[in-house]
Amino acid sequence: MSGKIFVVGFGPGADEHLTPAAREAMEQCDTCIGYKTYIDLVRPLLAGKKIISTGMTEEIDRGRKAYQLAKEGKNVAVISSGDSGVYGMAGLVYEVLEEAGWDPHNPDVEVNIIPGITAACSVGAILGAPMNHDFCSISLSTLLTPWESIEKRLEAAASADFVTALYNPKSAKRDWQIVKTQEIFLKHRDPKTPVGVVKSGWREGEIVVRTTLDQMADQEIGMLTTIIIGNSQTYYFKDVMVTPRGYRKKYDLVNKGGDLERLKEKEVA
Amino acid sequence: MSGKIFVVGFGPGADEHLTPAAREAMEQCDTCIGYKTYIDLVRPLLAGKKIISTGMTEEIDRGRKAYQLAKEGKNVAVISSGDSGVYGMAGLVYEVLEEAGWDPHNPDVEVNIIPGITAACSVGAILGAPMNHDFCSISLSTLLTPWESIEKRLEAAASADFVTALYNPKSAKRDWQIVKTQEIFLKHRDPKTPVGVVKSGWREGEIVVRTTLDQMADQEIGMLTTIIIGNSQTYYFKDVMVTPRGYRKKYDLVNKGGDLERLKEKEVA
Repeated sequence: MSGKIFVVGFGPGADEHLTPAAREAMEQCDTCIGYKTYIDLVRPLLAGKKIISTGMTEEIDRGRKAYQLAKEGKNVAVISSGDSGVYGMAGLVYEVLEEAGWDPHNPDVEVNIIPGITAACSVGAILGAPMNHDFCSISLSTLLTPWESIEKRLEAAASADFVTALYNPKSAKRDWQIVKTQEIFLKHRDPKTPVGVVKSGWREGEIVVRTTLDQMADQEIGMLTTIIIGNSQTYYFKDVMVTPRGYRKKYDLVNKGGDLERLKEKEVA
Repeated sequence: MSGKIFVVGFGPGADEHLTPAAREAMEQCDTCIGYKTYIDLVRPLLAGKKIISTGMTEEIDRGRKAYQLAKEGKNVAVISSGDSGVYGMAGLVYEVLEEAGWDPHNPDVEVNIIPGITAACSVGAILGAPMNHDFCSISLSTLLTPWESIEKRLEAAASADFVTALYNPKSAKRDWQIVKTQEIFLKHRDPKTPVGVVKSGWREGEIVVRTTLDQMADQEIGMLTTIIIGNSQTYYFKDVMVTPRGYRKKYDLVNKGGDLERLKEKEVA
């Protein structure tokens, strides 16, 4: 019997936001492979499992090892936080499998991608409703992407008025990209544009900072931080960050539809 | 006792991808409010609940009604598919509450935003790993957003090489935007760029079409369709849509890290 690979996104890391599919993949696997920080976040779910916990730059080894174990008949969960396909392990696992000769049409091991709630969405829910119009997701990590490409995307996102979620905004060794990002956005957007800076959202150690674009780069920011920059319409309703979809411009929100009594509740059996 | 409003994103509509928080909000509420199509998707979870199922353009009434009922002491779930904050009800509920005088610092009813898996991610997992680099999410609906703004965003997304998820790509009355979108992307991207067209992903009636940019607008597309346009690096590995993060350009995926035996499995108690 050949094994299976599950590429799992476990969402923000709180049990309440972990899907049954992701939980089951982690509970049913023989071996769970992941970056140390992620393994630690879900350790209570991994009782009795074999664990391979690797460093940050060992993603390729994680993929190779998963295939090796699955070929030996093991069920393997390769885990990331958030969604497995958004800066997660899904793409790399397929690339490693391809290089190793795996054939999707005649697979010696089965591969399942299990989606999860990506940070832009989980952090958005903490801040209010900032992602409620067209948005971009951009990683500021230059490890695999040249800065020129990232800068071009930041310019495009800022000039076309996208709400923008920044992943991997800053690390101990990489600190100038967030400053440059702020400069780019300030060319196109009001300095008082709402910006949410959230560390470890929905997890132990959560820190939520509601600030504005002109003060974004001055906040405490690290690899566990997700940043959401509002668009030109985003505002703070007290401390709730809201990006309007456009209803209020078009309709009277208090009286639209008139008497609500016509909306009948129906009991459902 | 005052009631509570839960703004719930229930993900793609399959139980396995429904988070415990979303399930609990739907199971614990007195009344569930939503667009008919969405109510029908989760009806088995709503046994015995009061239901207010409204038409597509009655979002404002849904928000107003939720506040009215919550003030009467009811717990109300306002539901959408996907994530509640991505073209969902979260923003509008806050706007309606603001207009009605609700105060987040001294609330007469409590508001909880429950995130979910947005279509870009759930559909991405079906197609393979297409969202695995910087991406944009753009709605083609012109109901609340002028076409000029949408077009500007499409141009920006196409020219800066973002993977792009299209929401609300086409409806019975609105059919030319997807054709125009194709034209815009063809100016910047190869006609053979992979495009995934997914209707009702993870649900009954799921239809998955793997096509290319030059044939995108010819597919059967409706309001239940999500479209994912790859970036310049996206490719089909047989029928798996993969957007590489950049590892293969930099590393030897087969031999990187050398002997995998150094990756020891540890039993965890």
